Amino acid sequence: MKLLTVGTVAFDAIETPFGKTDKILGGAATYIGLASSVLGVEAFLVSVVGGDFPKDYLEMLKSKNINVEGVERIDEGKTFFWSGKYHLDLNTRDTLATELNVLENFNPKVPESGEDAEVLMLGNLHPSVQLSVLNQLKNRPKLVILDTMNFWMDHTWDLLMEVISKTDVITINDEEARQLSGEYSLLKAATKIQEMGPKYVIIKKGEHGALLFHKERIFAIPALILEDVFDPTGAGDTFAGGFAGYLAKKGKFDFETMKVALIVGSALASFTVEKFGTEHLQEVTYDMLKQRMNQFKTLTSFEVEI
Amino acid sequence: MKLLTVGTVAFDAIETPFGKTDKILGGAATYIGLASSVLGVEAFLVSVVGGDFPKDYLEMLKSKNINVEGVERIDEGKTFFWSGKYHLDLNTRDTLATELNVLENFNPKVPESGEDAEVLMLGNLHPSVQLSVLNQLKNRPKLVILDTMNFWMDHTWDLLMEVISKTDVITINDEEARQLSGEYSLLKAATKIQEMGPKYVIIKKGEHGALLFHKERIFAIPALILEDVFDPTGAGDTFAGGFAGYLAKKGKFDFETMKVALIVGSALASFTVEKFGTEHLQEVTYDMLKQRMNQFKTLTSFEVEI
Repeated sequence: MKLLTVGTVAFDAIETPFGKTDKILGGAATYIGLASSVLGVEAFLVSVVGGDFPKDYLEMLKSKNINVEGVERIDEGKTFFWSGKYHLDLNTRDTLATELNVLENFNPKVPESGEDAEVLMLGNLHPSVQLSVLNQLKNRPKLVILDTMNFWMDHTWDLLMEVISKTDVITINDEEARQLSGEYSLLKAATKIQEMGPKYVIIKKGEHGALLFHKERIFAIPALILEDVFDPTGAGDTFAGGFAGYLAKKGKFDFETMKVALIVGSALASFTVEKFGTEHLQEVTYDMLKQRMNQFKTLTSFEVEI
Repeated sequence: MKLLTVGTVAFDAIETPFGKTDKILGGAATYIGLASSVLGVEAFLVSVVGGDFPKDYLEMLKSKNINVEGVERIDEGKTFFWSGKYHLDLNTRDTLATELNVLENFNPKVPESGEDAEVLMLGNLHPSVQLSVLNQLKNRPKLVILDTMNFWMDHTWDLLMEVISKTDVITINDEEARQLSGEYSLLKAATKIQEMGPKYVIIKKGEHGALLFHKERIFAIPALILEDVFDPTGAGDTFAGGFAGYLAKKGKFDFETMKVALIVGSALASFTVEKFGTEHLQEVTYDMLKQRMNQFKTLTSFEVEI
């Protein structure tokens, strides 16, 4: 099935306890595109960049079978830039700079080639941009997946609720699930969020894994145990891209398929965090992914016998 | 196999966001004994209580096939008392009172009936008490399991290292594993801790589950997703009791058996936290445990297929 995604294509400057980068390639749509390309799924990106965005980056994305027809280039503008510094535990970070630039007046345009997408991944962005993309599609996609964050809950609640009401799957972290629902128990939170629209709720817990909720069913996975996490930037977007890409590849959206999609997303995210930015994700092959999926099996499988 | 355990038998007064209790039955050995009794394993407790300890409590323990010959009663002393108040997230708490009382000069005496124990569970206590029990046994038990906490790392480092060097399995939480090893990565931490003595390292992560490390092997489980956690007191001790009890029952200490023991411990702990103190654990039957083990299977099982 065709996968369309909207999200940022950006410059990131990252500092972690292990080193720092100059401006490197980043952005939700970039990670989503790269993650789905590992699965052999062509993602159609909707995004915007400035005149300062290197052609090499776009060529690299194209070489990975990522469709960038919908990535508008505004020559007189500058590309969205984010800079952050992670604390020692890598779970918290300070934002050093956020320069919206061309993102400030981003008016997304879905390319004709992407209008009939059956799977729509709404990357973490202003809800009005997400809504605009949803409204441009000829038919309501078979599956709409939403990634969002606390910032939009704080500043654009009503718009966010409108997007949420139109989605099938939402991915947020545990604190955001609590904020969105007003419930501390994640089980109760997931139940309340399902009443807002999404039939599937994914709660991302970083180094503690992820949870999938659907009606009475729950699926839980730990995160892979890595020697070192080097740079968490893009982990959530990679997860979203792997998840959406796998579902587009399979063309099935039942609970069992979603479970595997959750593991694909987690496995791909585990590569991303091992190097700076998109560096490692660009190198990942399908075989490497399969190997890491098997590691998940080894890590979690057991026989009940008491 | 025979299971011997040393630990506190105590009074707890607990306050959670959901309510508060007067002095109720608590203590590591109490939870460990109750947890193993669900498995049909008779635990031999080594502990101490004061003249104020109700005979009814001891009768209740005996009725659960828990051996209390090694629970010394000091008539002129008072039972160890702990009081704490949990914060809204239930992950953190303030200690309101710690009255050591008879624990202050606790000189543990292993009863003759427990001297040939093959599995020794060292409940969370002063390392010198744990060492004393270990030294009283005729033969080195086939398996020594240690539960400890940051307090002993802060105050009795050398003694703790001596106990650690003599154990086969250690159970600690993630922060404690980091403190003990000086490594942030839990994989590196577990590797370093194995070099200190224990061949198996269990890292407890509360609502995020638990990890088991042994050489190159890792096993991870999430926690069961509960509607509400009511009172976390005793969860770690229940886990330790279920883990040790299952291994004593099986008489096997290989990695596969340890994996199931980890789930038994987690399943039992999930009962404990649903009510105050030992209340729910006292009601748990073998069938209830089996049912909850199956919930773990449902929660975590998947087929890799990409």
